[in-house]
Amino acid sequence: MRMRKKQWALPYLEAHEQLCYPNGEQYYGKWNELFNKEVLHLEIGAGKGGYIQQMSKLYPEIGWIAIEKDTSCAAVLAKKLIEEDSCDNIRLIYNDATDVLKWFKKKEIDVIHLNFSDPWPKNGYRKRRLTHASFLNQYKEILKDEGKLILKTDNQGLFEFSVMEFTNNGWKIDDIWVDFRRESHSEDAITEYEQKFMDLGQPIYRAIFSIRK
Amino acid sequence: MRMRKKQWALPYLEAHEQLCYPNGEQYYGKWNELFNKEVLHLEIGAGKGGYIQQMSKLYPEIGWIAIEKDTSCAAVLAKKLIEEDSCDNIRLIYNDATDVLKWFKKKEIDVIHLNFSDPWPKNGYRKRRLTHASFLNQYKEILKDEGKLILKTDNQGLFEFSVMEFTNNGWKIDDIWVDFRRESHSEDAITEYEQKFMDLGQPIYRAIFSIRK
Repeated sequence: MRMRKKQWALPYLEAHEQLCYPNGEQYYGKWNELFNKEVLHLEIGAGKGGYIQQMSKLYPEIGWIAIEKDTSCAAVLAKKLIEEDSCDNIRLIYNDATDVLKWFKKKEIDVIHLNFSDPWPKNGYRKRRLTHASFLNQYKEILKDEGKLILKTDNQGLFEFSVMEFTNNGWKIDDIWVDFRRESHSEDAITEYEQKFMDLGQPIYRAIFSIRK
Repeated sequence: MRMRKKQWALPYLEAHEQLCYPNGEQYYGKWNELFNKEVLHLEIGAGKGGYIQQMSKLYPEIGWIAIEKDTSCAAVLAKKLIEEDSCDNIRLIYNDATDVLKWFKKKEIDVIHLNFSDPWPKNGYRKRRLTHASFLNQYKEILKDEGKLILKTDNQGLFEFSVMEFTNNGWKIDDIWVDFRRESHSEDAITEYEQKFMDLGQPIYRAIFSIRK
């Protein structure tokens, strides 16, 4: 999924500071206000934004925030949003997700989405997985009490690791699918990447987690 | 998996009362003694016993108890055990699993196995699934504090249902596999039924649950 580094990316992101932020500090505790929306969804590792762009159209009543550390990907997303004039309920942070506690206040977020995150298959790199306990602890802080985290992946190892990591970290499973696309789920956007797996007949794994009371 | 009713089944089972029991009441609290083994494994819904027979050979230090309500299946298992003279560490209860509390004392069992249980796909029959909460509550009683339940299935719906049912019923997930046979697991027996799915390239789902403290 890594794309060639685009020289125009960072200048482009910097030139569109209404839409794209190097970090989220300026809106700490104010994201609802920024969007003028009651509900906030956050996608961490949004890539080129195929998912969040579709979802922001499907759910215009929600404020959508994309985090993507790869500036080339982030710029592709920004460009699409601007060209299609569909930036109303979406904002983009082009930075690493390790600093979310500085960008979002406690219990500020309703739903976190993790889609096809890098599986970091080697055990030595497990701490980099976006479902490692160190990340989950941060997600717990910024999610509302009734908040959810929705994980979707094609990667068996990441899915298995994640289910274990969540359930050992004080989360419960609200729903789980080992072949999400065997049924139609029109409520959830399909990205090009996801479609490729579906075309190959490979399963998509998905789970919804919430914080155990 | 249902087989044609065999007229010889029940008389055969009744004729081998050393090995086959209509229920487990007579050994309530005495299964360790019966086997002279410290560790007891129970398979509920053992079918024709392909799994438990292999496992009892792989792990001769364990006492193995099969429960199978279909007398034709149970008789096929009994016949194999007798013909192969491999009954030393295995016993068979040919009855419905709803009465396990009458057959096993509290905390008598180390591990329960559920292999390819009937999925009862229609929602109206969910209470018949061997992972329905009403069964889980019984399993909790007869399992030791450190006891485990190992679930293996090819059925996506049953697997998803079971993960939800266990985690909402005070169990935790010790391990989970969405494609168990993508790696070699020589510690676990493969039945003919399981091999069919493997030959078709279809995934085997497996999870190990234990009681949350």
